[in-house]
Amino acid sequence: MKAEIIAVGSELLTPDSSDTNSLYLTQMLNDVGCDVRLKTIVGDNQQDIESVLEQALRRSELILLTGGLGPTMDDLTRDAVASVLKRPLVRDTSFLEELRGKFASRGFQMSKNNERQADVIRDSVILENRMGTAPGMWIEESGRYIVLLPGPPRELKSIVEHHVLPRIRKLSVEKHLAQRSFYITGMTESELDSQLAPIYTVYPRITTTILAGTKHIAVRLYRWVQTESDVGELDTLAARIQETIGPAIFSTRNEAMEEVVGRMLRESGDTLAVAESCTGGMLGMYMTRVPGSSGYFMGGIQCYSDRSKTELCGVTAELIRKHGAVSAEVAEALAVGVRKGLHASIGLSITGIAGPGGGSEEKPVGLVYIGLTDGTHTENRHRIMPGDRESVRERSTYLALSWLRRFLMKK
Amino acid sequence: MKAEIIAVGSELLTPDSSDTNSLYLTQMLNDVGCDVRLKTIVGDNQQDIESVLEQALRRSELILLTGGLGPTMDDLTRDAVASVLKRPLVRDTSFLEELRGKFASRGFQMSKNNERQADVIRDSVILENRMGTAPGMWIEESGRYIVLLPGPPRELKSIVEHHVLPRIRKLSVEKHLAQRSFYITGMTESELDSQLAPIYTVYPRITTTILAGTKHIAVRLYRWVQTESDVGELDTLAARIQETIGPAIFSTRNEAMEEVVGRMLRESGDTLAVAESCTGGMLGMYMTRVPGSSGYFMGGIQCYSDRSKTELCGVTAELIRKHGAVSAEVAEALAVGVRKGLHASIGLSITGIAGPGGGSEEKPVGLVYIGLTDGTHTENRHRIMPGDRESVRERSTYLALSWLRRFLMKK
Repeated sequence: MKAEIIAVGSELLTPDSSDTNSLYLTQMLNDVGCDVRLKTIVGDNQQDIESVLEQALRRSELILLTGGLGPTMDDLTRDAVASVLKRPLVRDTSFLEELRGKFASRGFQMSKNNERQADVIRDSVILENRMGTAPGMWIEESGRYIVLLPGPPRELKSIVEHHVLPRIRKLSVEKHLAQRSFYITGMTESELDSQLAPIYTVYPRITTTILAGTKHIAVRLYRWVQTESDVGELDTLAARIQETIGPAIFSTRNEAMEEVVGRMLRESGDTLAVAESCTGGMLGMYMTRVPGSSGYFMGGIQCYSDRSKTELCGVTAELIRKHGAVSAEVAEALAVGVRKGLHASIGLSITGIAGPGGGSEEKPVGLVYIGLTDGTHTENRHRIMPGDRESVRERSTYLALSWLRRFLMKK
Repeated sequence: MKAEIIAVGSELLTPDSSDTNSLYLTQMLNDVGCDVRLKTIVGDNQQDIESVLEQALRRSELILLTGGLGPTMDDLTRDAVASVLKRPLVRDTSFLEELRGKFASRGFQMSKNNERQADVIRDSVILENRMGTAPGMWIEESGRYIVLLPGPPRELKSIVEHHVLPRIRKLSVEKHLAQRSFYITGMTESELDSQLAPIYTVYPRITTTILAGTKHIAVRLYRWVQTESDVGELDTLAARIQETIGPAIFSTRNEAMEEVVGRMLRESGDTLAVAESCTGGMLGMYMTRVPGSSGYFMGGIQCYSDRSKTELCGVTAELIRKHGAVSAEVAEALAVGVRKGLHASIGLSITGIAGPGGGSEEKPVGLVYIGLTDGTHTENRHRIMPGDRESVRERSTYLALSWLRRFLMKK
């Protein structure tokens, strides 16, 4: 299904405000088999919202509008949608009572302007907002679907999860959209495409998309299926992709790398400790995103100073003096030290020059060493990461996770 | 002048790719007095690019298109613009020679497909690209201006600076957008609005926006200024806001909390060490986002297991047994221990229940304790954070940073 996102709000058109809601929505939509074809960011201007929506209705089946549902006069999404669809806004009195109750339960009297939040577009489904007052709406219009969502991320996410995704999944099932997805790491987009293009071009009725992000490359296959053999074709292509790039695929279930690594650690019975210099905690932060990670993640040392490397990770001052804090030797010693200090079965370390300062001809900005040990074997890898400070740190974290995965695969 | 940005590229429609070029362009355009009215992000699909451009031409005077100017077949911006404007693409032979020279000077022979980069829209001005091969274009069409820019940020910025801004400045009337901003922490959005609304509503010609994020609330004031007194009014409102909510404002320069805290640490000559349980490294990760943070950030311990709290942060097993790992006593002991272990002047700790599991009636999911010590005084705070696991972790990190800022203010 072709989807389109329209983000409403003048604040989204300022230099330091990026539309993170749309990134979240893209992720969710991709996961349920919807392609995001276009995104528009429009200010609080009814005429602009209307003209953008009119265009969207001409080309996309699913249109999500975010923001502009609050109680104030510059919240214009409801009015714009009502006007484009030529449906009146009707005040939903039972919802109005509910709203009053919500305010009352928090000890507030509802102000007059909040009543606008009970104005709904005729024949729309109200989507309950458990995190706030402005409800979402789900509207069907000549085979197209229009979804109105509030702008605050917590509220938007809650409505999407509870009300929007289940509805889209149902539509996809009704329309029989089958999909397969692969998350890939350790290859460039062009390497990947040159290996896969000869395979997927054989199946013109399957839509294959390859999208590269900072964390991984996603390959997705979609097909509208009517018969068993249509699914069979999808499975055949999926199997051929698996054969061709096998080990580079880390998930076929839309899992993040830290989830995959977490599962592998749990399965192998291993435990992990990390020593982080330039990433300052990012690797541990990712590992502990996963609920239940305390089962295998022992902790780590953010060894930002040389002294902390020496005193807490057991790297000798001599070694740092000889090779420098950013070196293969120190990366390995950090992994060994943190493994021991935190009583883990595996130690993983990152030390590098994130920039913008601190680089030299011999050791440029972006140079990162990663150390890995299981107590028997200790290895290191290095790479020069492109991009700015934050990009170097993120890429380093993902490289470390990715290497850990390969290591666990061989066990 | 009303401007509009169209970012072209399917990679910009992936879940982890935000369009940073458009944020840069918005800043630059605002600085030369242009309002960005709308942004569209569109994939490599000629029909979509054309329909978006057609709409843009109807409503905006200045349209910037970024991306899609490379040599490959899915670089479609040139063709789409030519088709909408009904002007042919003509191969600029003198530019083609220049391009060949560029390749030759780097020791490459130019491949055939690169010749497309010398195809320019008839009657457009070629904007030299000092950083790459795809040139920009400046096109006038019935009183509207269309600017084509390459996608790579370095190339785009160079062309904007050298060729686009000077042209817009020349076009632009003497109208400028002045703005003031405040980043606020430690208040809810409604608390803030109830204090500020009586002030800012007095200035109807100033646009005031209040936007709450997980990290902070941003208050922004905008005004198109023609005279000195217009600026004066903006300064008066800014000063009244400062008086009213003074200490809650942590930046008037769009700085992140970690930058502000970093600057304060540098000024006071303090150094920081962190002990992180439920955040797993997030606090250190934020602190080390700032270039030069090694000057005041000593490092930390990701004390995810009880054993690491005991062995590396000096919290006695007895204390954990008695009060639990998530307690005021352990939070304080962690701060004291990590301060000592990492030889810092200030120790800061976070221990909490991020969920979704692990909560109890007495200690629910979201309960977080923060400990702070300067070696003389040791304190703790706790709060029950709303939201999911990631939200609890982020809010805890920001609460810790925010408290550290208040602590440093009192010094």
